[in-house]
Amino acid sequence: MDHFELTEDTPIEVAGGSPEGRRIAVWLAALIGNTVETTPAVREADEGSEGAVHLDIDPASTDLGAEAYEIDVSRSAVSVRAATATGLFYGVQTLRHLLPPSVEYTAAYPRPLRLPVGTIRDAPRFPWRGLMLDVSRHFLPVDDVKRFIDHLALYKMNRLHLHLSDDQGWRIEIPEWPNLTEHGGRTEVGGHPGGYYTTAEYAELVAYADSRFVTIVPEIDVPGHTNAALASYPELNCDGVAPDLFTGTAVGFSSLCTANELTYRFLDDVIRVISGLTSGPYFHVGGDEVETLSEAEYTAFVERVQDIVTRYGKRMVGWDEIATADLRSGSIVQLWRPLWPGPGAEVSEGRAAAAEVLREGLARALEAGAGVVLSPADRLYLDMKYDTATVLGLSWAGLVDVRTAYDWEVADVFGSIPESSIVGVEAPIWSETLGVLSDFEYMAFPRIAAVAELGWSAPERRSWGDFRSRLGAQADRWDVLGIRFRRSPGVPWSNGLHR
Amino acid sequence: MDHFELTEDTPIEVAGGSPEGRRIAVWLAALIGNTVETTPAVREADEGSEGAVHLDIDPASTDLGAEAYEIDVSRSAVSVRAATATGLFYGVQTLRHLLPPSVEYTAAYPRPLRLPVGTIRDAPRFPWRGLMLDVSRHFLPVDDVKRFIDHLALYKMNRLHLHLSDDQGWRIEIPEWPNLTEHGGRTEVGGHPGGYYTTAEYAELVAYADSRFVTIVPEIDVPGHTNAALASYPELNCDGVAPDLFTGTAVGFSSLCTANELTYRFLDDVIRVISGLTSGPYFHVGGDEVETLSEAEYTAFVERVQDIVTRYGKRMVGWDEIATADLRSGSIVQLWRPLWPGPGAEVSEGRAAAAEVLREGLARALEAGAGVVLSPADRLYLDMKYDTATVLGLSWAGLVDVRTAYDWEVADVFGSIPESSIVGVEAPIWSETLGVLSDFEYMAFPRIAAVAELGWSAPERRSWGDFRSRLGAQADRWDVLGIRFRRSPGVPWSNGLHR
Repeated sequence: MDHFELTEDTPIEVAGGSPEGRRIAVWLAALIGNTVETTPAVREADEGSEGAVHLDIDPASTDLGAEAYEIDVSRSAVSVRAATATGLFYGVQTLRHLLPPSVEYTAAYPRPLRLPVGTIRDAPRFPWRGLMLDVSRHFLPVDDVKRFIDHLALYKMNRLHLHLSDDQGWRIEIPEWPNLTEHGGRTEVGGHPGGYYTTAEYAELVAYADSRFVTIVPEIDVPGHTNAALASYPELNCDGVAPDLFTGTAVGFSSLCTANELTYRFLDDVIRVISGLTSGPYFHVGGDEVETLSEAEYTAFVERVQDIVTRYGKRMVGWDEIATADLRSGSIVQLWRPLWPGPGAEVSEGRAAAAEVLREGLARALEAGAGVVLSPADRLYLDMKYDTATVLGLSWAGLVDVRTAYDWEVADVFGSIPESSIVGVEAPIWSETLGVLSDFEYMAFPRIAAVAELGWSAPERRSWGDFRSRLGAQADRWDVLGIRFRRSPGVPWSNGLHR
Repeated sequence: MDHFELTEDTPIEVAGGSPEGRRIAVWLAALIGNTVETTPAVREADEGSEGAVHLDIDPASTDLGAEAYEIDVSRSAVSVRAATATGLFYGVQTLRHLLPPSVEYTAAYPRPLRLPVGTIRDAPRFPWRGLMLDVSRHFLPVDDVKRFIDHLALYKMNRLHLHLSDDQGWRIEIPEWPNLTEHGGRTEVGGHPGGYYTTAEYAELVAYADSRFVTIVPEIDVPGHTNAALASYPELNCDGVAPDLFTGTAVGFSSLCTANELTYRFLDDVIRVISGLTSGPYFHVGGDEVETLSEAEYTAFVERVQDIVTRYGKRMVGWDEIATADLRSGSIVQLWRPLWPGPGAEVSEGRAAAAEVLREGLARALEAGAGVVLSPADRLYLDMKYDTATVLGLSWAGLVDVRTAYDWEVADVFGSIPESSIVGVEAPIWSETLGVLSDFEYMAFPRIAAVAELGWSAPERRSWGDFRSRLGAQADRWDVLGIRFRRSPGVPWSNGLHR
């Protein structure tokens, strides 16, 4: 096959003097080389040279959009062009996939490194291609979160939603409210030690994500799922009595005291601090599974919190229950409940009624200019078991094997929502049963690749038969990266010897 | 099949009030349960109760030796007996292997947990069953080393040899010589950032290893392999000029200045500090691949270092070159050069001559009461490639697939050494090409299981045909533990779906 051969002597050229372009070039050079001797030189060059890989950020270079890229590989040169740094980064990720998996080694230099000759023009379908980590039920240290950011980058995903608080743990330092982390962060499900991110560590995560063109979406789940906060400050409770820390897995029992002004001063502090540390435009307020408030109390609370989020310059995101409140233009509803049946599915009366309430709220929200992120639990909750024999995970929304996550079309299920209102897709990973990084990885892989393609590729480019063979070829790269994954039956996994 | 069923209601009983026995019982309870609710109760009981798992440390309970254990599983009770806490820990590790791999999850409770009815009497062949991590060429953080200690415990291995210094990096803080780590520890092969263990971190590693009945064997490699030290202190060089830090992979070029008294004051500090932090009786001084000293200079140096090691209460261990020096009773020679051919192998003249020099030295050493640890590079160097297509690793001593590591008998190759002088076996993992934890794991697994059995089982109990099927069954446990491993051809690996 015709190819371009990369060696340590292949220069990586970058046009135009943009620092972001240069950083991407350095990233690519580091991928290719393991040592000072084998790392290709990075240099500036407005036009591509013979024998070089040339990277170019130029608004005029593509008409496919801000996240698009174009790649040309000939036998004598490689060019990657994009209108933005984001697009260029994605183009470089595609180059990465064209190189052998062993290029991922950081200390062993694989040879040969060949790129097949050809042309690629590529752009995503949806702007929001996300994953959520529940670091509250079980905490993940900073390095584990960084590793997941790298996983997102590998598949051109761009939102990492961090579920930073829940009944079982508060995971981010708020300097004005130190007990949240000192008390509310010290345990997790099962009673093991928990943990939290200092403001400096959270800022470090934001910066790391930015460097991979991933936007962190912080979530402080209110008014329910707040036992860790309520246990840390008695005055946040309506009766002034702090409950014990909670290490079980029940939901729905806790709520902030919505009639208490202190609650809003508390939320103002929390939202101000986290918003100030967050580079992206979103703040997720949770809003799910509140069973102890009236509908009026709930919607009034959500609207007041929306005002606080807006005051600190962010767009509010919330789980789909928030659709019953008056939402602003730009707010985002994250559909999570498996209320939308696929074509031909039978639906229970209770489910149909709940769906109707949600549809009505959503119709008003969309009219007001809100957007929707799709996370239907029966398709995209990556903490659902793969099959009945899977030990990890839950199954309340059903079993979700990789084909279930992949093999459906947004328009078939959510056809009642205008596609222009669909911001994108996101796969949450809740962690009641996930204790360590490799547990999270096992639930994420291989399904994360299905979610990424659902968010990236046009419907006419997607088919299970084609996907499963491309999916099987990912095994060697995951293996080299040390990622634990499920070798789902029905997928032709590569042999794992990563030659 | 007849079995004993373990549930969260099965008490773990421990006899005799020994704190070590109780710690082992708590370890087992934590393995079985994931939460406060599912963790079995631990209680004292001199005799085993119906329905309980009973652990007993009693010198009279077995005549098989200090590391031996005996297990009885009936349908109504389980008993594990040993003469020492070490033996009891090994018995509990065997119970662990009898439970399904999914018991290793820390947050998902697998059901059912069944132990097959039966009796086991078991004891190791050799007292030294080791692994070496080269944390100098590429540094591993504390948590990664702890993870490897857990890997050793899983296979009843009991020596973790840490190669703490080499040309490319000095990895342990010596308060009197701060530049060793501040300068000499700040890089590694390839020029990436290195790292080091503070004295507190090293002490933490020693304590963690002790709790898993693993003895840390610290190595400071002298007089060669010392560029990191020489670069940190000009006065340690004969010419008073500090060389640059070294990030390549060549060997043999560096040496301490053996004619300089400061060298011995330096070594006295280093050996005193590390010995004081080390609970085990060994100190490894390296001694390999010195190309810049005369034989007389070299042996005088080794003997003087041996005196220092003895002064601080430790037994000296060294690579096989030290056999030419006058060794004390209790010192240990680690055979590493592939100079001993297997039966029927052809041997080059150069190799035969080198082997002869070593044999002569070794004969004197054994006579003086020294012991031998076997680490023949062509069998037990786990940084050797598995096959020609393996990207990680080196191949100077040949290719070492899992069968090569397993399928040989110590007496066939090292028959000229009395078995009573053979302390045991150890598998070094050198890290020129290994950048991260999962690279080390890929080289260790599956071969670590072969090494463990070589050290544990009597020759008549070992056969490749039997081993390969037991080895294949390990895959699910490694997968649950998130261990990256090579699915070596010729082994019937379990399916990886860890039900």
